[in-house]
Amino acid sequence: MRCLSCREEYDEANAGTCKECYEEASETEEELKREIDDLKSKLKFLTARSPVDPQNPNPSSSCFTDVVLVASDDDCEDGAPSVPAHKAVLVSRSPVFRAMLKNEMEESRSGTIKISDVSYEVLCSFVHYLYCAEVTLDEQMACELLALAEKYQVKHLKAYCEKFMRSKVDVENALINFAFASQHNAKHLLEASLSVVTDNMEKLTKQDVYKELIDKDPRLIVGIYEAYLAKKDNTASSCSLPQNPS
Amino acid sequence: MRCLSCREEYDEANAGTCKECYEEASETEEELKREIDDLKSKLKFLTARSPVDPQNPNPSSSCFTDVVLVASDDDCEDGAPSVPAHKAVLVSRSPVFRAMLKNEMEESRSGTIKISDVSYEVLCSFVHYLYCAEVTLDEQMACELLALAEKYQVKHLKAYCEKFMRSKVDVENALINFAFASQHNAKHLLEASLSVVTDNMEKLTKQDVYKELIDKDPRLIVGIYEAYLAKKDNTASSCSLPQNPS
Repeated sequence: MRCLSCREEYDEANAGTCKECYEEASETEEELKREIDDLKSKLKFLTARSPVDPQNPNPSSSCFTDVVLVASDDDCEDGAPSVPAHKAVLVSRSPVFRAMLKNEMEESRSGTIKISDVSYEVLCSFVHYLYCAEVTLDEQMACELLALAEKYQVKHLKAYCEKFMRSKVDVENALINFAFASQHNAKHLLEASLSVVTDNMEKLTKQDVYKELIDKDPRLIVGIYEAYLAKKDNTASSCSLPQNPS
Repeated sequence: MRCLSCREEYDEANAGTCKECYEEASETEEELKREIDDLKSKLKFLTARSPVDPQNPNPSSSCFTDVVLVASDDDCEDGAPSVPAHKAVLVSRSPVFRAMLKNEMEESRSGTIKISDVSYEVLCSFVHYLYCAEVTLDEQMACELLALAEKYQVKHLKAYCEKFMRSKVDVENALINFAFASQHNAKHLLEASLSVVTDNMEKLTKQDVYKELIDKDPRLIVGIYEAYLAKKDNTASSCSLPQNPS
């Protein structure tokens, strides 16, 4: 038989689908691609012009902005350039900004929002994301943006950073990531890093960061040992018993 | 053989793909679905809160709006409710609004944009679309929004209305749609309606709208006859000659 898709001969052992299912699957694929094109076009239409581009910060391109954000991490706070933005955009992306700006708090009156513990570069990326849902991440940027996203409850950005960080978890950074995830309430990153930690207990309990954590946050270490024991028990029971629903 | 997809038996004549291609296609489908989920989530994040919901107009839900649009079609212009909006949104969706609002024209100074020849209901739907790229169309609404989208160069909305109108073209409305498409520069609708018109010349030249068009815009009717003749020639040549590249 000749495959209708790759046009190569195959024998009965390598047979896949019947003709009808092949044709249906092709149609489905075309439909999905059309849906993707529609969604991309809609997204392009709705994406707001970001008043700040992290690759090329140029506040002069902004228009009709009615608020500025200032990174208050910089030593020379007065000289720090501010990031212009639209209240309507901040409010629609973050419930924290919404409460801040709609309730006539200090920030709403002054038109200035101070963002503490963040560099100007990270703040630009943060604001840009609120407009375009796009950012180029490295590990440092992902950490800082995740913390900011958690603080201002920008779930979409938090999930994006968390996914990136999960993909980077290894034996070297698992403990640090575990502590970070615990601090910033990042459940998926917590699970991924805890799994690597408990798979490498002997190695990781020799790391300096392990000793630092015992001093700084011993409860976290307790959590690790509990997870380690539970995993060991599970492995043991699934080895000795074929099936144990309890 | 048993189909790996529908699990039914089939014979060689109904064979589709090999196993490898089936598995690849399944993976592709999963990937496309994941991409769709990602795009939908991004879209949800970026969609601005519309200050006006056409189903339930309630301007009090708007916030930080800095401009109002007024439908100047209504007789009682002074009493017509206005539609609040954000300059930043109008500017990012329409090059016409951009020129109007960035160049310190009358509209920018007064904060009021008059939209002529449109009802309040259509204006609400128009503004809502600029925020959410969503609208429920019927044939009347599609006509009016297409005209508005053409005037303010909102390509995404124009394409959306045009697609809807194309799907509704039939012998009864083909001539009207042809005239409408010509007036509003809607190429795809023009082609679709012209094709129905030239397929039904005898019937359509008896319609009242045909006689009206001869008075109002005879050039349009000339265009129809030219297309009709070209089609007839093509059909004739493709019948008499197997292939005619000229």
